[in-house]
Amino acid sequence: MELWFTERQTQDMAITCKVIKTHHVEKSEFQEISLLETKQFGRMLVLDHAIQTTIEDEFIYHEMITHVPLFTHPDPKKVAVIGGGDGGAIREALKHPGIEKAYLVEIDGRVVEVSREYLPEISCALDDERAEVLIEDGIKFIKEHKDEFDVIMVDSTDPVGPAVGLFTGDFYRNIFEALKEDGLFVAQTESPFYNKLLISQVFSEISSVFPITKLYLYSVPTYPSGLWSFTMGSKKYDPLKVPRDRIQKLDTRYYNDQIHYACFSLPEFVKKIIGQE
Amino acid sequence: MELWFTERQTQDMAITCKVIKTHHVEKSEFQEISLLETKQFGRMLVLDHAIQTTIEDEFIYHEMITHVPLFTHPDPKKVAVIGGGDGGAIREALKHPGIEKAYLVEIDGRVVEVSREYLPEISCALDDERAEVLIEDGIKFIKEHKDEFDVIMVDSTDPVGPAVGLFTGDFYRNIFEALKEDGLFVAQTESPFYNKLLISQVFSEISSVFPITKLYLYSVPTYPSGLWSFTMGSKKYDPLKVPRDRIQKLDTRYYNDQIHYACFSLPEFVKKIIGQE
Repeated sequence: MELWFTERQTQDMAITCKVIKTHHVEKSEFQEISLLETKQFGRMLVLDHAIQTTIEDEFIYHEMITHVPLFTHPDPKKVAVIGGGDGGAIREALKHPGIEKAYLVEIDGRVVEVSREYLPEISCALDDERAEVLIEDGIKFIKEHKDEFDVIMVDSTDPVGPAVGLFTGDFYRNIFEALKEDGLFVAQTESPFYNKLLISQVFSEISSVFPITKLYLYSVPTYPSGLWSFTMGSKKYDPLKVPRDRIQKLDTRYYNDQIHYACFSLPEFVKKIIGQE
Repeated sequence: MELWFTERQTQDMAITCKVIKTHHVEKSEFQEISLLETKQFGRMLVLDHAIQTTIEDEFIYHEMITHVPLFTHPDPKKVAVIGGGDGGAIREALKHPGIEKAYLVEIDGRVVEVSREYLPEISCALDDERAEVLIEDGIKFIKEHKDEFDVIMVDSTDPVGPAVGLFTGDFYRNIFEALKEDGLFVAQTESPFYNKLLISQVFSEISSVFPITKLYLYSVPTYPSGLWSFTMGSKKYDPLKVPRDRIQKLDTRYYNDQIHYACFSLPEFVKKIIGQE
């Protein structure tokens, strides 16, 4: 018998992967959490039927959500990841030796526990003494902090269920307040092929709050269309004006100094989505 | 009833698309040719079960196979497309006003005929007076021409069946001979996620023939992994040394002057594949 896991990426297309074993399935307070062993991508975390991360390709998303903003800031010390319960963003952030404190603020403690059990390669840095895991609502956490963070990374699921509030203007305004006067943030903002309206709206919202707003792109084979985006809002620093010698060589498999600048070069159809033709 | 077309992209994963109508299926002398109406991507050309092009995303591949090499050459006049029976590469090439002659050399005349019937948006330029369609073996065609072309574009299917000979050192040496003394060529070279060995071998073969060899990347949602590559071999011109003012604004939806340079910035794992860590 062959088992295949199919994610309906849109109403009209899907990706499907051969499954060797189902390690774990549960309904948490917030969502369905599944942990599959796939033949192509190794262990795979699936939340509410959507692939979140896999052992084979997780490095791409986690490197791109962290190193681009952390090298854009000249001296990040205190950072927060909102969502990202698998711990991958924290693992990458802690590769920057200047980081003194990295909060992981995850609403669903079960995601952290399942990741600790089945994805040690990804969650391994959560026990680092500079990391602090808080199981609470990221929206509330951001509201309660002012003028405190150098960099915030919004590592959310898709804008349905628990993550809806992470794609609103209110949230971006609270992030602005939670950042120091020269702080910056990034948020995962879906696929430019399948989520044009969302990207356009989020870019417009962030632009109305932050003086510098930039979209950047990277390729993740297990995400819808394979092309994925982050949007950066920054109070002071422009990622394209980072001096090249600031970008130290880290232990990465996707990010490097060339990618840092190139990921902001957008295809025509993407420029059109954010009104930059 | 719902019908879905599934392409097994590797042994262990697949993409699947909802199909509204099957316009055409035939076995030609060389391969199975199918033309489907899909809900997500519109009309779709499928050869031997592999998606070749769709109305929705064809612009990306066709712009990237043509504009990158055609702007790298300072004055391309005579060009050839090997394969590419749908006509998309010819359509894009003829957007360059300096082109005097563009050959399409397709081994399977039925691909051209099916594309003329069902994909007029893509095949529309095949009747341009500067275009000449030759139904013959591209390997033979290249062998029979010497010192003749400014740019050659190898728009092949995957390296199985009729396209196997288009991924060999012999073919690249014959292309070198068919090009003028300052000529250059590009070949489609599959996905850096799923075809590492092929990319490594082709890059090495082309490097042994051409003084300048470069890999570049772009995103196509209907191709395996969503990330796809071309490899360029050039006798004289370096695509990264193109003066920015040479890159005229054309009617494109993916390619632009920023993409021209950025597409050569490779992720670490891709640099590793071609030995450029």
